Amino acid sequence: MISTDILIIGAGPTGLFAVFEAGLLKLKCHIIDALPQPGGQLAELYPKKPIYDIPGYPEVLAGDLVDNLMEQIKPFEPGFTLGEKAKDIEKQDDGSFIVTTDEGTKHHTKIIAIAGGLGSFEPRKPPIDNIANFEKNGVEYMVKDPEKFRDKSVVIAGGGDSALDWSIFLADVASEVTLIHRRNEFRGALESVDRVKELKDMGKIKLITPAEVVGLGGETKLDSITVRKNNNPEEDFKLETDYFIPLFGLSPKLGPIADWGLEIEKNAIKVDNTLDYQTNIPGIYAIGDVNIYPGKLKLILCGFHEATLMCQSAYQKIHPDKRYVMKYTTVGGVTGFDGSKKEAPKAVVKSID
Amino acid sequence: MISTDILIIGAGPTGLFAVFEAGLLKLKCHIIDALPQPGGQLAELYPKKPIYDIPGYPEVLAGDLVDNLMEQIKPFEPGFTLGEKAKDIEKQDDGSFIVTTDEGTKHHTKIIAIAGGLGSFEPRKPPIDNIANFEKNGVEYMVKDPEKFRDKSVVIAGGGDSALDWSIFLADVASEVTLIHRRNEFRGALESVDRVKELKDMGKIKLITPAEVVGLGGETKLDSITVRKNNNPEEDFKLETDYFIPLFGLSPKLGPIADWGLEIEKNAIKVDNTLDYQTNIPGIYAIGDVNIYPGKLKLILCGFHEATLMCQSAYQKIHPDKRYVMKYTTVGGVTGFDGSKKEAPKAVVKSID
Ligand SMILES: Cc1cc2nc3c(=O)[nH]c(=O)nc-3n(C[C@H](O)[C@H](O)[C@H](O)COP(=O)(O)OP(=O)(O)OC[C@H]3O[C@@H](n4cnc5c(N)ncnc54)[C@H](O)[C@@H]3O)c2cc1C
Ligand SMILES: Cc1cc2nc3c(=O)[nH]c(=O)nc-3n(C[C@H](O)[C@H](O)[C@H](O)COP(=O)(O)OP(=O)(O)OC[C@H]3O[C@@H](n4cnc5c(N)ncnc54)[C@H](O)[C@@H]3O)c2cc1C
Repeated sequence: MISTDILIIGAGPTGLFAVFEAGLLKLKCHIIDALPQPGGQLAELYPKKPIYDIPGYPEVLAGDLVDNLMEQIKPFEPGFTLGEKAKDIEKQDDGSFIVTTDEGTKHHTKIIAIAGGLGSFEPRKPPIDNIANFEKNGVEYMVKDPEKFRDKSVVIAGGGDSALDWSIFLADVASEVTLIHRRNEFRGALESVDRVKELKDMGKIKLITPAEVVGLGGETKLDSITVRKNNNPEEDFKLETDYFIPLFGLSPKLGPIADWGLEIEKNAIKVDNTLDYQTNIPGIYAIGDVNIYPGKLKLILCGFHEATLMCQSAYQKIHPDKRYVMKYTTVGGVTGFDGSKKEAPKAVVKSID
Repeated sequence: MISTDILIIGAGPTGLFAVFEAGLLKLKCHIIDALPQPGGQLAELYPKKPIYDIPGYPEVLAGDLVDNLMEQIKPFEPGFTLGEKAKDIEKQDDGSFIVTTDEGTKHHTKIIAIAGGLGSFEPRKPPIDNIANFEKNGVEYMVKDPEKFRDKSVVIAGGGDSALDWSIFLADVASEVTLIHRRNEFRGALESVDRVKELKDMGKIKLITPAEVVGLGGETKLDSITVRKNNNPEEDFKLETDYFIPLFGLSPKLGPIADWGLEIEKNAIKVDNTLDYQTNIPGIYAIGDVNIYPGKLKLILCGFHEATLMCQSAYQKIHPDKRYVMKYTTVGGVTGFDGSKKEAPKAVVKSID
């Protein structure tokens, strides 16, 4: 069982920054995210796009902002349970909680901070009858660990940035990469489209368009797919493959958290914002895009503020008898759980003669 | 008369960022600050110190954060009234306001955002009887425009960073710089102390310690000061000078704003935070360090959030009949009042053959 002070559900910018603010208060955090990488919407939906309204950054790529946040929280050594979805919650007699993921991983925590954004990202699945039989047996909806595909044959389906980018990446890892799309046109960053064309001309990616995967074959494990070209059943053919990765986008769903007994309004969790973004269940907070209160704006910079106030409140709950006196980081420095220490150079007192 | 949509009192990080958020909503801002430069506490009290808790910045010097904010708001061409204190307010019949500074500059505005931090910075004055007679006639408590001192003789008093830094700077501008401090030891950045020693050895700065300025002489304009060495009246001597600049620190005072009829609690302005940080006077908001509400934290990142929500509310007041639909900067880009346009590169739709 994983044990922590604050269990954060969601590794988007809000959840990540909460680790930092908690760390300043000497509270340990562990983060669960359904995605294989941290960064939430920024990493999943627009990693290469610039954001212009992060205060102090005239411009920053979403992916770089995530990297900077990861660097900023490093001294506080957050734990991560990635690629798993927070599913069940049990309140303990002492007021603490046990949260279990869809894969059965258990987390024991004093405080829960739901930073779940628009919800956990769930893949859009292609409508192939027996696809559920092959999930985890050859069919993958996201690439959690590219090494899994080393020297295997892989079929990727889709026409957007994820399909393009993973085809490019896996061309150097897999023994064979086939990219299938139902149109001739791809929609993505210019350089990705151009790179796929190059790899195709070099024979490193096989391209089949316009086409769709309409069938899956194999005993217990996937060993082949059926491809329909030009929307014409008469042109159907079989293709042997170890893996089929349909990348048709991920859409966020509030999911199981909606059944935890929290007050929900407009698909978001209601909080008492005047104080600390706490929900109707004491000890459970909701911060960032996932919460709602009068005047709410779903912006990254608002999540940062909410995370900060939330951590102060969590501290008081965990240490009801301690009085916390806030110290500016510039004055007190940052002392990491890893023993690291950052601090401002001190002024000297020195005579001049 | 200066005319604007939002008059911001205070050019600290909160006031500066408000210009950006207002600009996204096509509202023009003008900022008043008592200090000669923007940046508030960051520029005045700790420009060369690192801050560690700006989200997305593992470390940033306070002065650099101010520079970045200035760069970020540039497209929205804020006006500045610097070195003047907002003093009087008159409400107009149409709900707008006229704000007058201590120097008589008048500003007409639809909305007021007080981002006054701990208050307007007021100099600590040395206890010399007739000093008030020479204010603006040879005695200056801050350096607003260094060019004023070109080829003049200048006496600076003080033992901290400001005294050190301005002595260094003016050594290249003034005809003569004398630095007087009541102790032998200076307290500041190591490099500043070392540089003053160098300039002293080169004969570019005259140093008198331990000593104090105890008298000022001159008809209408200052022409000399009396220096007391070693705290001993028998060692008093006269020194001719064009300017005397005592730099004994600035301390913030809420000042005249305290008499504007706003609800004050603990030297801060009470706001209704659940919505928009509006004060008890409709059309006047208080954001950043200057406000107070349950759970308030005096942090830079909180001021950013408050400024953002405030601007949304100001927009509704100025345009009661328009419905504003928020657009992400990544999606809508940033269109400056100066005609500039920043936007994310668009995805291409392209076939690969
Ligand atoms: C195209 C686009 C452009 C944008 N541009 C801007 C912009 O310019 N400026 C701006 O401020 N904002 C912008 N946004 C909005 C911004 O991305 C969000 O405000 C921000 O991502 C919210 O952060 P968060 O941490 O609250 O949630 P998210 O980033 O949504 O992260 C939530 C995470 O929680 C996980 N999760 C949820 N439920 C569970 C569960 N039960 N178990 C496990 N994991 C779970 C999800 O998988 C997800 O990774 C933009 C959004 C989009 C889509
Ligand atoms: C040494 C030190 C270290 C700090 N470290 C950190 C840190 O690590 N992290 C952090 O988040 N915060 C830190 N802070 C606090 C941070 O500086 C403040 O939260 C921040 O400056 C508040 O910004 P603001 O814009 O609200 O106000 P301020 O920065 O105080 O700016 C207010 C401005 O308003 C002006 N003003 C006020 N009244 C008037 C008037 N009537 N007319 C004209 N002008 C007026 C003032 O002159 C001033 O320039 C630190 C503060 C200090 C002193």
